[in-house]
Amino acid sequence: MSKAFTIVDWQDNAVVILDQRRLPTEETYLRLTSVAEMADAITTLAVRGAPAIGVTAVFGIALVVSRSLAFDFKTLWTEIESAAKVLQATRPTAVNLTWGLDRMKSALRDLQDLPILEIKSRAVRIAIAIKDEDIATNRKIGAHGQVLLQDGDTVLTHCNAGALATAGYGTALGVIYTAIENGKTIRVIADETRPLLQGARLTAWELKKNGVPVTVITDNMAASLMQAGHITKVIVGADRIAANGDTANKIGTYGLAVLAQYHKIPFYVVAPFSTVDLTIATGQSIPIEERGITEVSHIGSQHIVPSGIAIRNPAFDVTPSRLISAIVTEHGVIAPPFANGLSVAVHNTTHKKLA
Amino acid sequence: MSKAFTIVDWQDNAVVILDQRRLPTEETYLRLTSVAEMADAITTLAVRGAPAIGVTAVFGIALVVSRSLAFDFKTLWTEIESAAKVLQATRPTAVNLTWGLDRMKSALRDLQDLPILEIKSRAVRIAIAIKDEDIATNRKIGAHGQVLLQDGDTVLTHCNAGALATAGYGTALGVIYTAIENGKTIRVIADETRPLLQGARLTAWELKKNGVPVTVITDNMAASLMQAGHITKVIVGADRIAANGDTANKIGTYGLAVLAQYHKIPFYVVAPFSTVDLTIATGQSIPIEERGITEVSHIGSQHIVPSGIAIRNPAFDVTPSRLISAIVTEHGVIAPPFANGLSVAVHNTTHKKLA
Repeated sequence: MSKAFTIVDWQDNAVVILDQRRLPTEETYLRLTSVAEMADAITTLAVRGAPAIGVTAVFGIALVVSRSLAFDFKTLWTEIESAAKVLQATRPTAVNLTWGLDRMKSALRDLQDLPILEIKSRAVRIAIAIKDEDIATNRKIGAHGQVLLQDGDTVLTHCNAGALATAGYGTALGVIYTAIENGKTIRVIADETRPLLQGARLTAWELKKNGVPVTVITDNMAASLMQAGHITKVIVGADRIAANGDTANKIGTYGLAVLAQYHKIPFYVVAPFSTVDLTIATGQSIPIEERGITEVSHIGSQHIVPSGIAIRNPAFDVTPSRLISAIVTEHGVIAPPFANGLSVAVHNTTHKKLA
Repeated sequence: MSKAFTIVDWQDNAVVILDQRRLPTEETYLRLTSVAEMADAITTLAVRGAPAIGVTAVFGIALVVSRSLAFDFKTLWTEIESAAKVLQATRPTAVNLTWGLDRMKSALRDLQDLPILEIKSRAVRIAIAIKDEDIATNRKIGAHGQVLLQDGDTVLTHCNAGALATAGYGTALGVIYTAIENGKTIRVIADETRPLLQGARLTAWELKKNGVPVTVITDNMAASLMQAGHITKVIVGADRIAANGDTANKIGTYGLAVLAQYHKIPFYVVAPFSTVDLTIATGQSIPIEERGITEVSHIGSQHIVPSGIAIRNPAFDVTPSRLISAIVTEHGVIAPPFANGLSVAVHNTTHKKLA
């Protein structure tokens, strides 16, 4: 697959991100030079997708270190801790944010005896290495997951778990890209994913850029297409996976899982292992972000709900593991029951030395 | 329930309809003086909802008759037939359009020996009587259906099957209004109903006007609210009901029916008997309208899907009768299996003399 766009990267002592709020009409990049700007970019979904915000948070710490005026590690560490707190608070559901911050902090703590100037340049190199590792991880996920797809499949996907949701290549869409690279003909149906339309705006844009045939539908059309036999697989990403396999993902995922089971269509969750949170036993403990009501009441400047009406806007839902046919990570395809497979996989997770 | 707005009526030798395309931001009325204007109003959904377009078509015939320059019934009849053909072609799925046109033609045929001037004034009176009858029918439906609702229920409804979808009072929402009139506390959850947002725009507007507490969600949130136990009943309208009870209704209805069954939530279909089409055995024979792709690709003037992407836009889906807990018409509550109940009800359907 070609990769003609950058999700997040380091450039001229700043973090550069593609502004996904402006897709599909404009492909513009934001140059972030402070943690406050970065927190705003994450909160307002200029950058989104669990793996992507994990990597972006990593760059956020690199930014703080790189621009710090501290003379000693203790002062620098205070700045790092304070930035991590701000970044951690941006979004509650994706565990990758915690993962990225913890990983960066741990790597920097290991460097504390080096000269500050050396730590600064290493911090940036570590962030870039984590970004490159995320892309490599997605390639591995794709290689494992693509065996689940047959030539001729029509895959429904929800929200965007593509290159745009990661440092590059994608998780759910990465599986599709790899299947196509392996010579299989795969068609994609992208549901628009209200309220923020990541399917219509982002998945359609990304698949078109990569030459993959895609049809956009509204979320409420999926059941009818399943009934008609037009969907053969469902593949989604994840924002957090509990120890038993329960999966938090974009609102609407749970409904698709129920519909897939009713129509006997396999339902696959695809994510890097950094999305797995073994500290929580089931999905019931996953915090679900409730976002502002204007995301539902307005589309652009257009008011679509009468004013004064109550609105709900949970950004995620939890799919119980019993509805999931398989979970794909960089360690392979895990079949249900998931508890054992996920805990075996964690023992295979070793971070290579990054800097 | 107060009724502070008019859906369709006769005024100064023209048909007046509320322009539902402009809700909820503007409450404006269109004055239709020709069949072409009326066909455009139906096609572009200025007036929508199966019972409402049935009654509007009735007024369309009254309009032709009232404004005809014909001197003899034969000429007048040619004009009526030609108008009926134009109106019939506006939308394929709702059977009420056929029902309204057939009923009006049959009533006028009975008057063929009267003087033309007399036929003209009677035509308008018949149309008004059919409109009043639709409202009375909805009241009867409400009285039958409200027994299905318990004090404290939270009802999910889809699209708009309220006063705005009928000549007044509503079918699915009529049941809710009557339950409330009977002293029950009922909360409503309205899903927005992409692509045209009838739930967010129309149901929320109408319920607010009538003082009924309503919460708007996007379509893909329904499953999550069911999972959390926040929805106790689902009530929807219908565009056509086959002899076996299979029901065509707004796209998304079928998915809700599957989700309701999975969560053991009763799923009720509410419609006037004019929506039942005993000439077709099952839902497989119901024609499903596929509408233009800009309804999905744009919201207002905002482009939300990259250009050049394939889009599907079926306006309806078919819910198999096995997923329906009961069908409510003006003849009562019909329990499954529906074939017998529907054919008994047809024998109770007699049209009173209207003019």
